[in-house]
Amino acid sequence: MASDGHGSERQRAASRRLSAIAGHLRTAGQQQRPQVAGIHCKAESSSDGEEAARSTTVPRRRQEVMKWNGWGYSDSRFLFNKKGQAEFTGRRYRLSGMVLPSLKDWFESTFGASLQHKSPATATLNASAVPFPSLNEAFLQDLKSTGIPFSHEAEDRVFRAHGHCLHEIFALREGKFGRVPDLVVWPNCHEDVVKTVDLACRHNVCLIPYGGGTSVSSALECPPDETRCIVSLDTSQMSRILWIDEKNLTAHVEAGIVGQDLERLLNESGYCTGHEPDSMEFSSLGGWVATRASGMKKNVYGNIEDLVVHIKMVCPRGVVEKSCQGPRVSIGPDIHHFIMGSEGTLGVVTEVTIKIRPMPEYQKYGSVVFPNFEQGVACLREVAKQRCAPASIRLMDNAQFQFGHALKPQVSSIFTSFLDGLKKFYITKFKGFDPHHLCVATLLFEGDRERVLQHEKQVYDIAAKFGGLAAGEDNGQRGYMLTFVIAYLRDLGMDYYVIGESFETSVPWDRVLDLCRNVKERIVRECRERGVQFPPLATCRVTQTYDAGACVYFYFAFNYRGLADPVNIYGRVEHAAREEILANGGSLSHHHGVGKLRKHWMPESISDVGIGMLKSVKEYVDPDNIFGSRNLL
Amino acid sequence: MASDGHGSERQRAASRRLSAIAGHLRTAGQQQRPQVAGIHCKAESSSDGEEAARSTTVPRRRQEVMKWNGWGYSDSRFLFNKKGQAEFTGRRYRLSGMVLPSLKDWFESTFGASLQHKSPATATLNASAVPFPSLNEAFLQDLKSTGIPFSHEAEDRVFRAHGHCLHEIFALREGKFGRVPDLVVWPNCHEDVVKTVDLACRHNVCLIPYGGGTSVSSALECPPDETRCIVSLDTSQMSRILWIDEKNLTAHVEAGIVGQDLERLLNESGYCTGHEPDSMEFSSLGGWVATRASGMKKNVYGNIEDLVVHIKMVCPRGVVEKSCQGPRVSIGPDIHHFIMGSEGTLGVVTEVTIKIRPMPEYQKYGSVVFPNFEQGVACLREVAKQRCAPASIRLMDNAQFQFGHALKPQVSSIFTSFLDGLKKFYITKFKGFDPHHLCVATLLFEGDRERVLQHEKQVYDIAAKFGGLAAGEDNGQRGYMLTFVIAYLRDLGMDYYVIGESFETSVPWDRVLDLCRNVKERIVRECRERGVQFPPLATCRVTQTYDAGACVYFYFAFNYRGLADPVNIYGRVEHAAREEILANGGSLSHHHGVGKLRKHWMPESISDVGIGMLKSVKEYVDPDNIFGSRNLL
Repeated sequence: MASDGHGSERQRAASRRLSAIAGHLRTAGQQQRPQVAGIHCKAESSSDGEEAARSTTVPRRRQEVMKWNGWGYSDSRFLFNKKGQAEFTGRRYRLSGMVLPSLKDWFESTFGASLQHKSPATATLNASAVPFPSLNEAFLQDLKSTGIPFSHEAEDRVFRAHGHCLHEIFALREGKFGRVPDLVVWPNCHEDVVKTVDLACRHNVCLIPYGGGTSVSSALECPPDETRCIVSLDTSQMSRILWIDEKNLTAHVEAGIVGQDLERLLNESGYCTGHEPDSMEFSSLGGWVATRASGMKKNVYGNIEDLVVHIKMVCPRGVVEKSCQGPRVSIGPDIHHFIMGSEGTLGVVTEVTIKIRPMPEYQKYGSVVFPNFEQGVACLREVAKQRCAPASIRLMDNAQFQFGHALKPQVSSIFTSFLDGLKKFYITKFKGFDPHHLCVATLLFEGDRERVLQHEKQVYDIAAKFGGLAAGEDNGQRGYMLTFVIAYLRDLGMDYYVIGESFETSVPWDRVLDLCRNVKERIVRECRERGVQFPPLATCRVTQTYDAGACVYFYFAFNYRGLADPVNIYGRVEHAAREEILANGGSLSHHHGVGKLRKHWMPESISDVGIGMLKSVKEYVDPDNIFGSRNLL
Repeated sequence: MASDGHGSERQRAASRRLSAIAGHLRTAGQQQRPQVAGIHCKAESSSDGEEAARSTTVPRRRQEVMKWNGWGYSDSRFLFNKKGQAEFTGRRYRLSGMVLPSLKDWFESTFGASLQHKSPATATLNASAVPFPSLNEAFLQDLKSTGIPFSHEAEDRVFRAHGHCLHEIFALREGKFGRVPDLVVWPNCHEDVVKTVDLACRHNVCLIPYGGGTSVSSALECPPDETRCIVSLDTSQMSRILWIDEKNLTAHVEAGIVGQDLERLLNESGYCTGHEPDSMEFSSLGGWVATRASGMKKNVYGNIEDLVVHIKMVCPRGVVEKSCQGPRVSIGPDIHHFIMGSEGTLGVVTEVTIKIRPMPEYQKYGSVVFPNFEQGVACLREVAKQRCAPASIRLMDNAQFQFGHALKPQVSSIFTSFLDGLKKFYITKFKGFDPHHLCVATLLFEGDRERVLQHEKQVYDIAAKFGGLAAGEDNGQRGYMLTFVIAYLRDLGMDYYVIGESFETSVPWDRVLDLCRNVKERIVRECRERGVQFPPLATCRVTQTYDAGACVYFYFAFNYRGLADPVNIYGRVEHAAREEILANGGSLSHHHGVGKLRKHWMPESISDVGIGMLKSVKEYVDPDNIFGSRNLL
């Protein structure tokens, strides 16, 4: 590995630069230029006792707070209580401790399900059902002398064996384990990663980087036929903000930090990145870079490619990074774009310089009701055309609007429910909106107060031209508040024979309506043809706007009771849905990525020459396929 | 070459997609799904007689309108008339036909030059001094049967042998020719390019794509030791707008179109791309993609990477392109970024889908005078921080401000010069600005009128906080008007022993002032140490603002009378200036690119692994180095 070569090349460049700077130093009568020597600048290394100082929310032993066979925190889950009302347990979320009285009826009528028909998960992780680790003893020996923490305990390994695709969670709930990592390592800093990768190359060990474990593309799945020792390289302990640069509004951060910690720590200094993917509680900076992540408020803050200023990645060939932090450059093809989207196949992202912004002075939610989805899409298209989109604007279809109603927490006051009733009357009877066609857009504005109010007016004026009716801040706020609990709902569904998944695409504006209609129709047809007993839920939402198109997000779920191989049926319907998306002009993915789940369509998506380009980079950077997740290609 | 493979892969994907769409077609009683067949959609090919319909401003025989040994149009040049006043000839520009009474004095005092000391260029291109073409007869034979126009006339070849680096123009002015292309071909469309590349591969001929010929990185220079037949693949006749998509606000355009034609044609439909590099009269869409071009109004329209939605490139390995036009995707590393910045080393960009915008309703220029450069930079930094930059904002240093004064055309009215005098009095005596320190920022606002006026107020308010004084629209407009004639000035300088060049960088905000100061100081020192008789002009301008930094543009020029090898001295000073830029945290280039001129610093800029990644792509895409310009690597 060329890490030493990288070091001395950088040292030589640094010497030359210091020498150039020194040329400007003058003192009276000085004949020769002063000598300036460089010293390596590094953050203090920390020991285990300082883990608290790192302020990581998710500990090294994830099992202390996370579920082993479902989404999120162990203490937070949906359940139906004895009265048949849905509750959300725990104390972490705004919704926590609340009762959702309408959810049961919606659930039973939407899926033809019944609370009597239970399909519970295996309660505890049976360590003895986990395959023994297949350890590379020479690697382990060398690893021990580095002092880098590691484990080959069953729980640690199972936790890092999967992402959150339906088939992965379904298998866990059945207590089934496929190929899992043999070893987990927790490097603490960039140098630890350099050592780990070096050892992996020397001993031919397979490395799979692990950030937040939120992949929904089967990216984290271990290839079942991988015979080498598989090491899960968990970046979670490499999570410090190394410096904040207030002059340039950037922060240099270790790539293992997760979204919630990054924002929380930056907020302490009055800053934020504003990058808020739905997975941000658990997903990591390195993972965002590796998958080309997108965040809810990209209209203000940009997507990951707009946010990063500098990336450092360790790969078998060495360390790759640019030597300057210029905001925009023309120095050949942009190597940041060789790293972004590489989905763990080239190396480990260790440090990232990311743009930060002062926290917004003011935030305001909003919502607009449209008579139908077509009008809503036309409104979003016009907002995009006028380039006046709020920080976030999302349009849900009628089915999601009804779903949103089912998620309303129990209202404590008669007055509030009276108000709700009034609103409903106004919208349906007075304004003539049909409750089976109307749609809702949720909005979030951010910025200085005066400009937010101006901006708000502009957007509502446009909405009115498309028959949109302002429906208040509450509805908007609730829409966004639900964002982080939606993922917990799937686990509830799976307790009652309902399985489902989300998937997404990006598509030009003129194809949006056809794509939404055709994909939903195709899902319904495919389910019927495959013997699904009750029509599926197929619903969509326009979740981002761009100049030349939009991001569309689908939810698809169905009742699998009576079916022999539900996961297989699910997979084939999803495959057909993706074919339908592509046929209608949509892309393979807007932000979830390709992983192993969508590799099949890569040649068609980027052409054979494109595939060849990616392969040539892989073969150069990682000729022995140390980073053997087999994503993408 | 895999062009056939590409065709059938695309055909198979297209069939699958049509089949999916057809699944939604239903007629009453129909048992089977209707069949839908695809037909290849292509624009009508045009013959030579339709050249006028293409509306290209620069004809195939460039020598009909362009200079052979200087910048731009033959009919437009600066000269000193008998009275010693500078004039700008021709009728193409606003400045054309005007007298510039102050230029002589500025020129003589700035450079210690004299109109008595003349260093004229060789007047005509001596065709017999041009090396005979080294033709590959087999290639030529096959080329003839394609019907693609070609030439091996001396003039055609010389015209495509160079860009506009100082050393290239200096050599031409001396009537000297190095290695020049042996053949020029003019493909008319994508298919012609496919055929040409195919033949080049078969006969091992070196291809150098030629767009507008405005490179300032020696990218177009033929490698002197290239023994194969060198073919200049001139894209200028491949210049149609194939379609305009008003629903998605995109246009699909052949890559040989030049900026002025693209904007003019789009304007006819009420649209624009808004991409306005200083070279836009001559530079091409394909060239912008290949070099990662930036435009004056990028604050509104974005740089080339923000503007492109789809790119098609022909390379020896085949045609590379994505199969969808989604606005933003996560499908692995973005192959568009393998193409952008490849500087002609991988293939020929043939067609691009680019974003278009409705033409702005309203435009307003402006200018602000600052007491000094530091205050000006601080103001630009604040404007960037508040994310309220106008379409364009540029801050020139004091030397450029004085230079701008020297370029003032003769004022026809006593009243206007009285006003100018008043302004000068006000700024200097009344407000106490020192004319040897003050700087000017020029501004351009675009958009709907109401918002422009609001925006304007916001920016001037910020400027006031930094001691800035609004100095009127005229000064702003003139600053931008000069943009397209500045390049002609170098030719004037070279008539009187003055040589010079511009170069640029991007740099974080906190390094801007040091970089500007240190680079100028270094230039002066290096010139002195190398025996330049009179201190050089070294001046800079902050020409773009970003969240995390700025683009800085330098002009460097000196009087070389009495020096034996002025171009060599120039080159070594420029080299030192670039070392100084890098030492001060600046990048290798913001938008000019690397070419051959800056290859030296590539490993340091993107790391050895980065170089290896680029090489691996090159070796896959073009294993025989058909695209043998030897740029970048």
